[in-house]
Amino acid sequence: MARYEAAQGQGFMMSEAQKIGTLFGVGVGPGDPELLTLKGHRLISSSPVIVYPVNGRGESLARDIVTDAISPDALELPIHVPMKTAREPAQVAYDGAADEITTHLDQGRDVVFLCAGDPFFYGSFMYLFQRIKKTHQVSVIPGVTSLTACAAALEQPLASRDDVLSVIPATLPEDRLKAELADIESAVIVKVGRHFEKVRKVLAELNLTTYAGIVERASCEGEKITPLSDMPSGERPYFSTILIYRGAETW
Amino acid sequence: MARYEAAQGQGFMMSEAQKIGTLFGVGVGPGDPELLTLKGHRLISSSPVIVYPVNGRGESLARDIVTDAISPDALELPIHVPMKTAREPAQVAYDGAADEITTHLDQGRDVVFLCAGDPFFYGSFMYLFQRIKKTHQVSVIPGVTSLTACAAALEQPLASRDDVLSVIPATLPEDRLKAELADIESAVIVKVGRHFEKVRKVLAELNLTTYAGIVERASCEGEKITPLSDMPSGERPYFSTILIYRGAETW
Repeated sequence: MARYEAAQGQGFMMSEAQKIGTLFGVGVGPGDPELLTLKGHRLISSSPVIVYPVNGRGESLARDIVTDAISPDALELPIHVPMKTAREPAQVAYDGAADEITTHLDQGRDVVFLCAGDPFFYGSFMYLFQRIKKTHQVSVIPGVTSLTACAAALEQPLASRDDVLSVIPATLPEDRLKAELADIESAVIVKVGRHFEKVRKVLAELNLTTYAGIVERASCEGEKITPLSDMPSGERPYFSTILIYRGAETW
Repeated sequence: MARYEAAQGQGFMMSEAQKIGTLFGVGVGPGDPELLTLKGHRLISSSPVIVYPVNGRGESLARDIVTDAISPDALELPIHVPMKTAREPAQVAYDGAADEITTHLDQGRDVVFLCAGDPFFYGSFMYLFQRIKKTHQVSVIPGVTSLTACAAALEQPLASRDDVLSVIPATLPEDRLKAELADIESAVIVKVGRHFEKVRKVLAELNLTTYAGIVERASCEGEKITPLSDMPSGERPYFSTILIYRGAETW
């Protein structure tokens, strides 16, 4: 049976639960607090419990985006998930977070989990979703992704007419990256970070450099747009996405 | 020179324009009026001129989504673009719309153009953007796309970890569609409409049917979710998107 048929079945069971809180996975958008949806704003500002991921220094991009929306009476639960290659520490962290969240749900409190961008677009929310959906009501509120925020920043279409759009993580091995990029019409390379030099090399080999633009901190203060051909050698843009658009649509 | 380098240059020139209105291309999201962004809501509710595409019957999905946000004092300009294979009638329509919009901008009025989903994701806004950007300030406000709205509806991730995500228009010829879908990890097939039987056939040939779910009217009233394997032969889902997710992420 397909994965999501099982998930649907659980969804029907869950809708019968009563007097139990709901977990809302809310996409808070790419960075500009005004790119939060009306629905996200309503849920965040009224939720008694707000959960969000933090890095090792206690910083949270998702929390920063919606600072002004959170009620001063809300209980905030930062969750730190170790970003190691080994999965076990992360599994332990997600199990612990799921226990904490379900305790609140069982006591009748709704819980909002804040997701940068969208909850189901390369996010960590899916790991909590999978755990908690088995026993409780979970609702996913989509958000604006970095894809469209970067296209808006670069002032070029993400895709048009019959274009195939490929979204490719920079974390892939060089060979695979090259194969995926070889015949693209329109592509977005996500998770660039420390993989920038590898991506630059592959794009140069494929003669795609002049079609590529880098967006750092899309939609945020300090947003920076650079043609890939202008990026100095050795410089690594921080928190960046690369768009490649070969279309030349001129209706 | 790359397309968007030229566009950037125009952007710098335009920022010096004064006492001239700005055109805002506003993504209004996938259908649920609450999935409009705060920024979109602010711009729509304060804009003196609202422009939107209509079909031959005068209906506008984008206008319907934001009905409650438009000021009763706003001037509304529906634009009908003939959806024919021949490009000339559409070009004439876009030229006329651009003239009408720039007249308002020159008289110091801001103009909002309503885009279902996101302005640069398979939208028609790019054709107005290309025309008007040459002489006037244009700002693109990203919106929630059908991609993430469909993933939320199906309760399955769009992409996770190192997944490559392919967005593929159902309008492609059958051979090309099959080639694009052959090795996918995660895919969204957009613009399904009257191409449904072709897509169904290709997915069956690739043994992908059990991984595929159809979402009709994502996030709207009447949203309907159907496993592809449950869709009766001959039935064609209206206004639908197909998601295929082969991941089995279970952290």
